[in-house]
Amino acid sequence: MYVLLVYDIREKRVGKMLKLCRRYLNWIQNSVFEGEISEVKLKELFLKAESFLDLKEDSVLVFKSRSQQWLEKEVWGQERSQLGDFL
Amino acid sequence: MYVLLVYDIREKRVGKMLKLCRRYLNWIQNSVFEGEISEVKLKELFLKAESFLDLKEDSVLVFKSRSQQWLEKEVWGQERSQLGDFL
Repeated sequence: MYVLLVYDIREKRVGKMLKLCRRYLNWIQNSVFEGEISEVKLKELFLKAESFLDLKEDSVLVFKSRSQQWLEKEVWGQERSQLGDFL
Repeated sequence: MYVLLVYDIREKRVGKMLKLCRRYLNWIQNSVFEGEISEVKLKELFLKAESFLDLKEDSVLVFKSRSQQWLEKEVWGQERSQLGDFL
């Protein structure tokens, strides 16, 4: 399954979330990740995130698609993921 | 066409971009928008955004899908879009 994950969470938790998401998905921009992941692994990611997020304040959107082929990606300006390794 | 648009741009240009995107799409989270839009309207949005964005610094990702049905949305925590009208 192809997944696009976008979060909007309190600054104090951002570092932890960034680190966690990087273990499961590819960072592509600011608070945006994408990648192939199974339902089981996504559930694992959710449970780990849930342990430190405040779901009354934080927001995470996960867009799932059976395959990446249903989504065409267009980039205007910089493609941040190219910098991913240096951050 | 269903589109998911995510931007990561310099703070001084955020207000302008937010206002512009709201005229074409639905705001769903922080710097994330979604909605049905034609290629022509998307091009119009791009041209307007291009006029004030600095594409050497800013980054806008547009994920296009022929139909929203190919994407399933899951929300962890808050669904920001419910606040949209008050912002």
